[in-house]
Amino acid sequence: MAGTDSTQHLDDDTPYGAPAVILVRPQLGENIGMCCRAMLNNGLQDLRLVQPRDGWPSDKARAAASGADIVVDTVRVFETTAEAIADLQRVFAATARPRDSDQSVMTPKDAAPEIHASARDGIKTGVLFGPEAKGLANEDVMMADTIIAVPLNPAFKSLNLAQAVFCIGYEWHQAGLDVDAWRESASTRDSIPATKQELLYMFEHLEDELDKCGFLRPPEKRPAMVQNIRNMFQRAQLTDQEVRTMRGIISGLTYKHLRGKD
Amino acid sequence: MAGTDSTQHLDDDTPYGAPAVILVRPQLGENIGMCCRAMLNNGLQDLRLVQPRDGWPSDKARAAASGADIVVDTVRVFETTAEAIADLQRVFAATARPRDSDQSVMTPKDAAPEIHASARDGIKTGVLFGPEAKGLANEDVMMADTIIAVPLNPAFKSLNLAQAVFCIGYEWHQAGLDVDAWRESASTRDSIPATKQELLYMFEHLEDELDKCGFLRPPEKRPAMVQNIRNMFQRAQLTDQEVRTMRGIISGLTYKHLRGKD
Repeated sequence: MAGTDSTQHLDDDTPYGAPAVILVRPQLGENIGMCCRAMLNNGLQDLRLVQPRDGWPSDKARAAASGADIVVDTVRVFETTAEAIADLQRVFAATARPRDSDQSVMTPKDAAPEIHASARDGIKTGVLFGPEAKGLANEDVMMADTIIAVPLNPAFKSLNLAQAVFCIGYEWHQAGLDVDAWRESASTRDSIPATKQELLYMFEHLEDELDKCGFLRPPEKRPAMVQNIRNMFQRAQLTDQEVRTMRGIISGLTYKHLRGKD
Repeated sequence: MAGTDSTQHLDDDTPYGAPAVILVRPQLGENIGMCCRAMLNNGLQDLRLVQPRDGWPSDKARAAASGADIVVDTVRVFETTAEAIADLQRVFAATARPRDSDQSVMTPKDAAPEIHASARDGIKTGVLFGPEAKGLANEDVMMADTIIAVPLNPAFKSLNLAQAVFCIGYEWHQAGLDVDAWRESASTRDSIPATKQELLYMFEHLEDELDKCGFLRPPEKRPAMVQNIRNMFQRAQLTDQEVRTMRGIISGLTYKHLRGKD
């Protein structure tokens, strides 16, 4: 899979300067596959492997990728970390255990806007991840410009490889997102909030019926009772459809009530 | 594992009002175990299962939890979602596919501070997650007050269960974190930045040697050359140790140079 063809392909397809993910000596095919899935979830596609222990290609990786085939199909395998990052200009090392070096340490949230800024300047970036059990070796960390460490529960920092990839990809994706547009598109509220006029008619309808059945007594307590009821419905931020539903409920209950009296 | 004893235990141990995680009809033990690990990574401990398909306890779950035994050991199993959330006061539903309902939709980043705020008000919270393949059923989503959806690559939104748990736990943990204190503790820079005086001595040492060897010529170009060299080292934000190292390098190189001339 190595060679200029796939590089060309990745450059064209990878959205807005996404960082490359470099897995150094990953062990299990399943974990590589789960990394592929976590990458594509967040719009990353350029995966590079350095000496995958169980070889490549891997059926287990493809199964665990759960459909992230575009990542699996364009994986490139390298003999050394140096070769895997040769074309990159800014490299981050994801490690739970910052070594005795003077590299600066960032959180994924800090690193995300830096990666976007690099991309805007035409700078190619990548993130190194170590093997499952041990994490990155010192000599790999030293090849990076910056360390990324995820702030986790200090009592339990052992992060699954695909979770580490997800976490950094997630922050990168969130940082490039128009969250307001996303919220708009994700919203399930397809009906619009009721107007205050619709709400007022509903209140009057309800209070009229409550007056009739004697609920709003004694008269001196009526204003406070009405206020409490109105507050309750105001707080619910009803839609126009919900106001119509409520009026149907009031009518239905009163109809039954009257019929019971017949 | 059900009963008041374990509830008591969880209330005492769970840090600063962490939300409960409720897995509704999870399928694979491995996935439950990976959820345990992802939870503890982010300081969550209260895991509740509704009808786990492959039963509970599960050896595969314990193996996949990779040491998150405190979560595995305190899991509680329920017959229905309603029973699993009975003691909670605010429930979120994690779903990729908001249904045709009028519940409001939040991102994990939005929900995190709300969960913390609820905890400060003494309100118990929890997050529902559906089975691996299908996600939450409509009737489960309806039991929640708010939907949480993760903004992902629209072309590939299929999120692994443990990744979904990780993502929401991660945002909750980050929102409760003193990031500055974390950065301080995670920093590998144990030496302090050099003072400007140390840096100036180094520059003078270097420029003195460069004058001697004739590098800073012709004289009219000297100021610009000196400026460029100083800029380069300024940008590197050297520590005091690094300044000492640089001065050693300058001395070493000059010594060799002179010796070569002998």
